[in-house]
Amino acid sequence: MPSLKGYSSDLEYSYAPGVFPSLELMRVRPESATRLLLSERAQGEGVEKLRQICREYGVREEIADKALRRISGKDNCFAAVVFEKWQAELAADKPHVVLHHPMDEGNLGTIQRTLLGLGLKDIAVIRPAADAFDPHVVRATMGALFSLRLKQYDSFEAYRQEYPGHRLYPFMLDGSVMLEEAVQSVQKPYALVFGNEGSGLPPEFAQLGQAVRIPHSNEIDSLNLSIAVGIGAYAFVHAQEKQEG
Amino acid sequence: MPSLKGYSSDLEYSYAPGVFPSLELMRVRPESATRLLLSERAQGEGVEKLRQICREYGVREEIADKALRRISGKDNCFAAVVFEKWQAELAADKPHVVLHHPMDEGNLGTIQRTLLGLGLKDIAVIRPAADAFDPHVVRATMGALFSLRLKQYDSFEAYRQEYPGHRLYPFMLDGSVMLEEAVQSVQKPYALVFGNEGSGLPPEFAQLGQAVRIPHSNEIDSLNLSIAVGIGAYAFVHAQEKQEG
Repeated sequence: MPSLKGYSSDLEYSYAPGVFPSLELMRVRPESATRLLLSERAQGEGVEKLRQICREYGVREEIADKALRRISGKDNCFAAVVFEKWQAELAADKPHVVLHHPMDEGNLGTIQRTLLGLGLKDIAVIRPAADAFDPHVVRATMGALFSLRLKQYDSFEAYRQEYPGHRLYPFMLDGSVMLEEAVQSVQKPYALVFGNEGSGLPPEFAQLGQAVRIPHSNEIDSLNLSIAVGIGAYAFVHAQEKQEG
Repeated sequence: MPSLKGYSSDLEYSYAPGVFPSLELMRVRPESATRLLLSERAQGEGVEKLRQICREYGVREEIADKALRRISGKDNCFAAVVFEKWQAELAADKPHVVLHHPMDEGNLGTIQRTLLGLGLKDIAVIRPAADAFDPHVVRATMGALFSLRLKQYDSFEAYRQEYPGHRLYPFMLDGSVMLEEAVQSVQKPYALVFGNEGSGLPPEFAQLGQAVRIPHSNEIDSLNLSIAVGIGAYAFVHAQEKQEG
């Protein structure tokens, strides 16, 4: 195998940096793992568990302090599993969350983790966007990525062509219906659509479905994207449960 | 005036780094401002507006590139207003949010901004905790701090002594009542209590009020603190509005 490079989006592999994300990868998608990188200083219970599960799956380990530093940008990353990236297909009959041009890596990680926690496992990311497979994002998800069906698209139209039947709920600052009203009568399957951190969704999205507004005071410009996704997704999931009662 | 130091918690002043947070400070709490620091490279509409409002309030400006770099840790911070810190008193008849040992500066900033957006302006921070006046936190709030009544306490008991009448709702992973049930009958005035990012609230908090759980799947350990605060605060605020009709 050739020597490992620092991560870039056009590589076919990425890294799960840290013991916890690596364990998650081996628990959920061991078939994607190709190598275990360890620091000379790696030790402890988590590390031993990781080494054992990698041995069970025939994933070769090697000492690679330099690579770990390069991948994580830190001096205290003691383990990482190299994995082949994959392109998931979203479930056609489940609710989707569509992220339109999310650019912040930390946000994208937190959002993945939040959505997994709320049981929304099908996520479309519309490029240009932060790379969901970037090791920094993987780390921020705490491994949630491995349990999600996340697909990256080059345009919203490309997503829409594959899943034309989902009722769209674009979240917009001037959405015509308040969140609590919108969740009173949700059409299934639904897709919650969230825009970029700075600029939100382009105005034409209001025509594509039922634009939703999360009410907030005029003392702030907008809620942080990951907070808006958390509040919006929670309200939809909970309303669904109530209706199914 | 003596030369400006890098920020530390025991100083009686802090910095609003960046044009936007500085403008917010001058809009909401101009009486706290003492100096305007500008970079030699500062220019643009926002900067001119900031200079003008500082002149109106008699806040002296000076070129201070070195101080700006030291405060922000960045090379592209072109303006900052120095302000005297204050100790706010919480409103006794309003809902409170109590943050017990929040350690992450970014989280604390995002939470302040979120709560201002949801109209919850009274925040108690229980130390040890990230410093709400740290310039990095101020920057993450986008200036929300200046519109809030935020008070830092050395213990939860110290907060409780001042406001013994608020009905406590501690958010806990094993809370006995689900969020949606809890908001059906909220006793006012209420205080939402959230624990540390890693360890949550100590178990004894369950005895202090009605412990609340935000349901999430067992595929994650817990929601990010700022997401939990967003979801919890939104649900309580909205339930209040509904009850008040």
